[in-house]
Amino acid sequence: MAQVEIVAVGRELVTGVVADTNSAWLAAQLTALGATVSRIVVVDDDPAAIAREIRAAHGLVITTGGLGPTLDDRTLAGIAAARRRRLVEHPAAIAFVERRYGELAAAGLVADGALTPPRRKMARVPEGAEMIDNPVGTAPGVFVDGVVALPGVPEEMRAVFAAALPRIRACLGPETYVAEREMQSGSGDESVLAAALERVTEEFPGVHLKSFATTFAPDCDLRIRITARAADREAAEALVGRAAARLEAELARVRSGQG
Amino acid sequence: MAQVEIVAVGRELVTGVVADTNSAWLAAQLTALGATVSRIVVVDDDPAAIAREIRAAHGLVITTGGLGPTLDDRTLAGIAAARRRRLVEHPAAIAFVERRYGELAAAGLVADGALTPPRRKMARVPEGAEMIDNPVGTAPGVFVDGVVALPGVPEEMRAVFAAALPRIRACLGPETYVAEREMQSGSGDESVLAAALERVTEEFPGVHLKSFATTFAPDCDLRIRITARAADREAAEALVGRAAARLEAELARVRSGQG
Repeated sequence: MAQVEIVAVGRELVTGVVADTNSAWLAAQLTALGATVSRIVVVDDDPAAIAREIRAAHGLVITTGGLGPTLDDRTLAGIAAARRRRLVEHPAAIAFVERRYGELAAAGLVADGALTPPRRKMARVPEGAEMIDNPVGTAPGVFVDGVVALPGVPEEMRAVFAAALPRIRACLGPETYVAEREMQSGSGDESVLAAALERVTEEFPGVHLKSFATTFAPDCDLRIRITARAADREAAEALVGRAAARLEAELARVRSGQG
Repeated sequence: MAQVEIVAVGRELVTGVVADTNSAWLAAQLTALGATVSRIVVVDDDPAAIAREIRAAHGLVITTGGLGPTLDDRTLAGIAAARRRRLVEHPAAIAFVERRYGELAAAGLVADGALTPPRRKMARVPEGAEMIDNPVGTAPGVFVDGVVALPGVPEEMRAVFAAALPRIRACLGPETYVAEREMQSGSGDESVLAAALERVTEEFPGVHLKSFATTFAPDCDLRIRITARAADREAAEALVGRAAARLEAELARVRSGQG
């Protein structure tokens, strides 16, 4: 099963000014593609910290944030350091940046479309990298050595992720399918459900069960999420179905006070 | 300056079912206390992964999630492994759990208040740990060897964080103060602002400047956040004030087309 790590970059994230919703979106997309996100790491706009996390990562790495024109946009420097590549101006990327600022200037959205040093900086990428189109912003995405670099503005991140999908799928290898079902437990007491979940988990090793509540409310009816993976969708659904039936029987025992 | 790492634990986080808003809340609190959050890591409910992150961390570690009664609540096992301590039943913790379930049973919120094995599990903590009160839930917080373990339910996490504050402050050492100011840039073009921000950053090395927009909109007026730290609040405010005045002069040049 393909493993992915997400590295989210930005001072606004490590200081709690903004919650890292980008990584949650990416994790949901990647999980739906059959990948396992083993780790999400949030670091400051610091090339050394970014490089450390990328070097330590296993599997595909997806970064978000730090591709813009300002001094503190330093993710590409971090990726270059991690992969021991120089930063070089990418011909297609420079053409892209020039075209985008030309369009913005023509629309009167920026004063002029000149390729200033900060704008040019966005096209300086690790040597050998491929450029990924950014249909909504000015900073291109980058793919190099198993690292996909996405912008940090959510709308741009989602658009560049979509543009990078063929490369991401190729890195993930054969797709696996995830089936999921949620059910009411009929109980508000997680400690009572624990034994029932444990019995089902033991019987279905590939299946994941999780009871959850979004707030502490012992009188609420806890929900249970059942997740299973398999090589095709039918097999995954069948596995979830069998686990759900078994769990239903266990829950009936709990509700009757025998759990 | 005190350094903190946050380790957020939960399958729901690495699969993107839930965004990690707990870490953002914690990061904001810790930043306001004068600490630097150098890293936020999100991992699955896996003791080995949790232990790996804690062992690799520098400074104070705050974990959130995985303290409940179910099988997949395994954060304390991860902390114990990282700190080479056994898990043992903590007398004050077991008394706490028993009292809480007694209260819930008396209120008719759970069927009975018995100390079942899953409930007892919440009081099995790394040997030598201190228990931290949980005024809103049933799982106690834990403090051991520079690790503070908080629950994952946001309401409980905040309450246990408040209860742990004296210990957290003691770990952070002498407080530093953070002053912050936001201003409009009068420009929607980050690449034009970059040079102005760079000049101010060079002149005020202790000051952090960041332009930001929450969406890609080149015609919007980007805001700039100025942050500075000092030993007391007055010094921090004065530093921000000087940097803001200098930036205002630079921005005036940008607006007049000379930037």
